[in-house]
Amino acid sequence: MSFYWSGLTASLNPYVPGEQPKDKIFVKLNTNENPYPPSPKVIEAIIGAANEKLRLYPEPSCAVFREAAASFWKISPDQVFAGNGSDEILAFAFAAFFNSQNIDKTPILFPCITYSFYPVYAGLWNIPFSTKPLNAEFDIDPDDYLTESGGVIFPNPNAPTGRALTIETIKKIARHQEKNNRVLIVDEAYIAFAGNCENDSGSVGSLIPFINEHPNLLVIRTLSKDASLAGLRAGYAAGNSELIEGLCRVRDSFNSYTVDRLAQAAAAAALGEYAYYSEVNSKIINTRNRVESELGKLGFRVVPSRANFIFASPPKPKTAPEFLAALRDRGILVRHFNKERIADYLRVSIGTDEEMDAFLEACRTIISEL
Amino acid sequence: MSFYWSGLTASLNPYVPGEQPKDKIFVKLNTNENPYPPSPKVIEAIIGAANEKLRLYPEPSCAVFREAAASFWKISPDQVFAGNGSDEILAFAFAAFFNSQNIDKTPILFPCITYSFYPVYAGLWNIPFSTKPLNAEFDIDPDDYLTESGGVIFPNPNAPTGRALTIETIKKIARHQEKNNRVLIVDEAYIAFAGNCENDSGSVGSLIPFINEHPNLLVIRTLSKDASLAGLRAGYAAGNSELIEGLCRVRDSFNSYTVDRLAQAAAAAALGEYAYYSEVNSKIINTRNRVESELGKLGFRVVPSRANFIFASPPKPKTAPEFLAALRDRGILVRHFNKERIADYLRVSIGTDEEMDAFLEACRTIISEL
Repeated sequence: MSFYWSGLTASLNPYVPGEQPKDKIFVKLNTNENPYPPSPKVIEAIIGAANEKLRLYPEPSCAVFREAAASFWKISPDQVFAGNGSDEILAFAFAAFFNSQNIDKTPILFPCITYSFYPVYAGLWNIPFSTKPLNAEFDIDPDDYLTESGGVIFPNPNAPTGRALTIETIKKIARHQEKNNRVLIVDEAYIAFAGNCENDSGSVGSLIPFINEHPNLLVIRTLSKDASLAGLRAGYAAGNSELIEGLCRVRDSFNSYTVDRLAQAAAAAALGEYAYYSEVNSKIINTRNRVESELGKLGFRVVPSRANFIFASPPKPKTAPEFLAALRDRGILVRHFNKERIADYLRVSIGTDEEMDAFLEACRTIISEL
Repeated sequence: MSFYWSGLTASLNPYVPGEQPKDKIFVKLNTNENPYPPSPKVIEAIIGAANEKLRLYPEPSCAVFREAAASFWKISPDQVFAGNGSDEILAFAFAAFFNSQNIDKTPILFPCITYSFYPVYAGLWNIPFSTKPLNAEFDIDPDDYLTESGGVIFPNPNAPTGRALTIETIKKIARHQEKNNRVLIVDEAYIAFAGNCENDSGSVGSLIPFINEHPNLLVIRTLSKDASLAGLRAGYAAGNSELIEGLCRVRDSFNSYTVDRLAQAAAAAALGEYAYYSEVNSKIINTRNRVESELGKLGFRVVPSRANFIFASPPKPKTAPEFLAALRDRGILVRHFNKERIADYLRVSIGTDEEMDAFLEACRTIISEL
């Protein structure tokens, strides 16, 4: 605490990202990074942009990046916003579409267990919020969001649970919120790992193909996970052009150029590499399904995941933090959230098959030593 | 205007950056970019970082970049904050150190004629502000800032005037503001072009060597101009570690990783290339001095500049916007601000000698055709 800090700064409760170890080589399963490298075309694009033009400001609207996303999704470039990772876009979106409590005390809604940055953004912009519990299976209960609100946001699949809602369910929430001109933000950081899957109530997948039906729907994507580019800081949002313009207004009141020339070129290249990433992400899905099954055999309680991580509770008598510490001693990093209802769980990012075998082997050893 | 926008978004009056032309080759003297390329070592650093590690998040504290800045200035890394260009750091600093009017109605102070992003930041964070006029020579009057305030910010040299205050004058303002625990932010985007110069009241230069004397002084730097890296988005701030921690709190409530792996590596490399940039920036200073003299001969009213641009009023009868249009017709872009007291002036970034000769030749033609 410093007497030079503003009242806002003193009141903030900042997000704490997962550890980025420097001192030692770890099997790093703690920040949901993709274990496979980015496409060689992406590296080529960066090297191609590493030239004397770096002396010039980037193209401020990120046209090439936005056009690549628009072309991929068969939407218009004015329905796409590009940002410095999805975190930046989320920060802008909270400001752009959710009112501060000085203007409207109706709370925005998000799940009680979800991406822990959401309450931080609400604090930054002084936005009133109310959280809704997950059901017994850690699923979002859609009925909780078919109600009056200041706006709604959730990840699909949700984090750190990995559970997904169907397209039809999300469209129903969007339609309900549209009645009061409220925005629904769907954070699709992990949707590429849901696969093209069906369940009893319909199919799971991206909502971007439906933005023309839902003027109040903003879908936010990151290239960090599904395009192996966490180190590059690139994300985008898709929605109706009025929503995109709202994001631009906030960005241009904050920092006109947030995506540098290298990241713009690399992101555009990544969006053209569907075949490469499709293969990489299918491998991750297969590995996830195998590890879920193995963990079940080891006595873990596993929440079936649609993401590039597994949320699972290790067998007693070790607590989750104790199990995490034992894994760390064996050179394996996973993540724990010290929070009601999930304090018994660990979130384990999906690595390569070799990394996951090392993780499973460490689990077996830890359990055998109990 | 959209009914999906928040009250904040509707109220914003976003910054408009200078034009980045796409359609045609221009002599681009409108956005204060450096006309010389970045050091080859910077390009090497980018290519060295363009590898499979891009799948991993960047080091969140930007340690290598901060250590390079600390080493350059002989300060401690915990006295340095790294950001996505100085614009992002300014946005964070307004939130971190200046109070919203819900908490304190004492206005922050900045010059009436200055970087036009300042009132935009104040709008974004709902910070009350009051502007102080420049004197007849377009200089900041230091007495205006030896008063009660919610904090003070100005660029040194100021933009778009190019006028600088001395180190001693700025230290006096810092000491005065320290009495009420108010922060003084000095935005040194252009200080490298001031040269090591003296005037009647003392020397002009960076305030970074004095941060240990002034716990309330935050100095913000960008690599966009003096390191030819506008396209990379990298800047830093220097100040006491409590101020740096305040910036970290805001950043970690907004976007934990704003400087990507490539930019961190490139910025660190640039900070090690003093000899290269010193030569480049000396050339710019020499060109500026020559062009100022030539413009004077052509009948321009020139404000003597300490920056990498010239602020000058073209000879009548053409107005400044008419002169700008005539230059544009001849393939030369400069910038005009439609604002009281400076509407007769143009801001001309310093290009290479060849570019400035083309600019001077165009000026001669336009004037001869009057």
